[in-house]
Amino acid sequence: MAKILFKDLEKYFDQEIEIQGFVDKIRDLQYVQFVVLRDSSAKVQMTLEKNDENKELNDIISKLTKESTILTKGTVFKQEKVKLRGMEFIPTNIEVTSRSEEELPIDILDYNNKSKQDLRLDNRFLDLRLDKNYLIFKGQTLAENAMREYWINNDFIEIHSPKILGTASETGAEVFELDYFGKKVYLAQSPQFYKQMAMAAGFNNVFEIGPVFRAENSHTAYHATEFTSVDCEISWIKSHHEVMDLEEAKLVHVMKSLKEKLTVDFKEIFKKEIQIPSEKFPRIPFLEAKQIIQEKYKYFGEKPYDFDRKEEELICMYAKKNLNSDFVFIIDYPFQARPFYHMLDENTKLTKSFDLLYKGIEITTGAQREHRIDVLKAQALEKEMSLESLDFYLNFFRYGMPPHGGYGFGLTRFLMRLFEVDSIRDVTFLYRGPNRVMP
Amino acid sequence: MAKILFKDLEKYFDQEIEIQGFVDKIRDLQYVQFVVLRDSSAKVQMTLEKNDENKELNDIISKLTKESTILTKGTVFKQEKVKLRGMEFIPTNIEVTSRSEEELPIDILDYNNKSKQDLRLDNRFLDLRLDKNYLIFKGQTLAENAMREYWINNDFIEIHSPKILGTASETGAEVFELDYFGKKVYLAQSPQFYKQMAMAAGFNNVFEIGPVFRAENSHTAYHATEFTSVDCEISWIKSHHEVMDLEEAKLVHVMKSLKEKLTVDFKEIFKKEIQIPSEKFPRIPFLEAKQIIQEKYKYFGEKPYDFDRKEEELICMYAKKNLNSDFVFIIDYPFQARPFYHMLDENTKLTKSFDLLYKGIEITTGAQREHRIDVLKAQALEKEMSLESLDFYLNFFRYGMPPHGGYGFGLTRFLMRLFEVDSIRDVTFLYRGPNRVMP
Repeated sequence: MAKILFKDLEKYFDQEIEIQGFVDKIRDLQYVQFVVLRDSSAKVQMTLEKNDENKELNDIISKLTKESTILTKGTVFKQEKVKLRGMEFIPTNIEVTSRSEEELPIDILDYNNKSKQDLRLDNRFLDLRLDKNYLIFKGQTLAENAMREYWINNDFIEIHSPKILGTASETGAEVFELDYFGKKVYLAQSPQFYKQMAMAAGFNNVFEIGPVFRAENSHTAYHATEFTSVDCEISWIKSHHEVMDLEEAKLVHVMKSLKEKLTVDFKEIFKKEIQIPSEKFPRIPFLEAKQIIQEKYKYFGEKPYDFDRKEEELICMYAKKNLNSDFVFIIDYPFQARPFYHMLDENTKLTKSFDLLYKGIEITTGAQREHRIDVLKAQALEKEMSLESLDFYLNFFRYGMPPHGGYGFGLTRFLMRLFEVDSIRDVTFLYRGPNRVMP
Repeated sequence: MAKILFKDLEKYFDQEIEIQGFVDKIRDLQYVQFVVLRDSSAKVQMTLEKNDENKELNDIISKLTKESTILTKGTVFKQEKVKLRGMEFIPTNIEVTSRSEEELPIDILDYNNKSKQDLRLDNRFLDLRLDKNYLIFKGQTLAENAMREYWINNDFIEIHSPKILGTASETGAEVFELDYFGKKVYLAQSPQFYKQMAMAAGFNNVFEIGPVFRAENSHTAYHATEFTSVDCEISWIKSHHEVMDLEEAKLVHVMKSLKEKLTVDFKEIFKKEIQIPSEKFPRIPFLEAKQIIQEKYKYFGEKPYDFDRKEEELICMYAKKNLNSDFVFIIDYPFQARPFYHMLDENTKLTKSFDLLYKGIEITTGAQREHRIDVLKAQALEKEMSLESLDFYLNFFRYGMPPHGGYGFGLTRFLMRLFEVDSIRDVTFLYRGPNRVMP
């Protein structure tokens, strides 16, 4: 018999059933005992009169601790005077399946006590019991599912690229080293080269959702040493605009799906609505965006070829106010700010690249890739990279390589802005940072 | 304009269109040139007469190399005398988007030349161009999608557990060590402890599909140092049979979905049919299975508490012949063969555990987990483990832990037997073994 979810209890009124859950609250009064039970779907009140007949059960409840788990037999009744869902469960048997210690290390309802963030992360298994946190991971699940739905419906192949690499990916900076049977190997910083290998393999369109690793000694709210990267790559394109078309269509599908499946809880718990974006996100050339920021906001970032955090926020503010969009593509970055494999536009000499910003933060980097080996080599040399260490990668381009492009999307950054929480720690199952590898 | 897939060309008869693809074959005859083009969906013949008017295009084709990619404008006509799909494409413009070197390092059609396995793996991007290989990854994509469909429809939460661990998971054997800002950390061998953490967090039902890492110096056809593990864990169960119910229902859904979506290609390329299993897989107690193997096949394995490879094959042969099932659960293993966290049956003292075997090979290990901290500690001590190193894990059990169970499923082993290929190397995008971390 599969477990009856508490949200479905209405279907079982007046029947003897067996239910299981966490002990959410206990009120042990003079003549009656109330226990609120909780599972991931809902809560329900269990009520038991104190009398001789119930003595054994009364004793069990008296000794019960909050957050213990129980299995109980009994009957669920419609009971309008009960505030909690107008029903109550009257037990005839109770088994304590696990007993919680009296004192919890954190107050699991104390979500907003940010000063205790480390304590909350130490006890993440308790922190996650908060309904707000459960909803975040339900949202994550639905968002990923909507993305995959979109890809599968468009004939994409799912790949699982290796995370153990014989040579450091891309630049070699910020990469973790690993002892591999006495040899030195590396953890993947991104699936970039392997998504491109799939293009060389003729896979047409691919996606991957998996972990990537960055040895960055960074403690900001939007960096982690390990995070989930959402990647896709498509063949036979003519410009980066086709990649952006794909990303925006996918994100509209994701937001629609979230609105449909999450909206009641979302409103109740997060006190806001999910906004479905228009089909077309604004696309602002990088140099134009710099100008807007300087002219409208009198802010002059220090990086000539890229944005700093403040500029990301300002251009998003601009897009929201003037273009009514939470999402904005910044396109055509100078080559100085981009990796060697981004394709250059023949006329402007700018890269055929883009970032996607969402509510003040970069969530995607994408581009059309350079697929012509001679140009690719020249661009690598311009970035002072060694062609020897790139040889395995350049090999992918020697025997026919479709024109292609793609993007990487930071799942936690997206969720952080969707739920408008303060840190990716809040939307990561178990955050990993320079000082945190436990639990 | 999105790329026109070759499989859809029928829709464009007599229209001027633009198509892109790999050059599959070239026949440059005296009066006419034939080029077969290929994309991941199908092939099509391009035909061009040799004459003065076509001189420029004739020259391009004369210099073309196999496996190059081209972009071509022209018209596709119904042409019954053409063997390949009864159509031909007449070009008016051809652009070579990437030129393949003349000599390929492997014959990409030479799938069965097993002696060249290392060469094939070195050039996996070419090896994967074979239609058989594309179909394998299409099958993988559809199989995973069907699993997720099943879970999402049953309200599972998707988790991404960390792969970087502060302490070695489970036994500490066969684990990769990593330098982490001067500290020693480990790569996850399985998401086991973290799936259980999700149970402590009240997540009810969870799944994860992601990489795991094993520092095993093993070179067999069914081991790798990095592979994709499919994991799920469910709360509020009473026995491991509920976990098996879940796995078999999920696999029936997967096989039905594969049969529906893959069957034409599967038959054509692999010359066999996908078999949909019955709803109930046989469940044979371990000790009974040992007896069957000894009595029926006169084979006596050396391990008293587990199976060797030969025994796995024999019991599968038995299940196929006598119970008409490709899948068979072996249940109730002795504690000696199982990890400390498997729950013991109070009466038999055997573990409430199971393996799932499929066509001769183990593809799943599962169990009801011990959720009572005192019993769990005692079992860890019996296995001579240090409670200190397990402290972060035991912590999950201190404040209420639902009775729960789950399983881990080897995706590549399943695919290897589904497609009946010889090695997991054939069903892994890029195999990783003790001697192979490239490309």
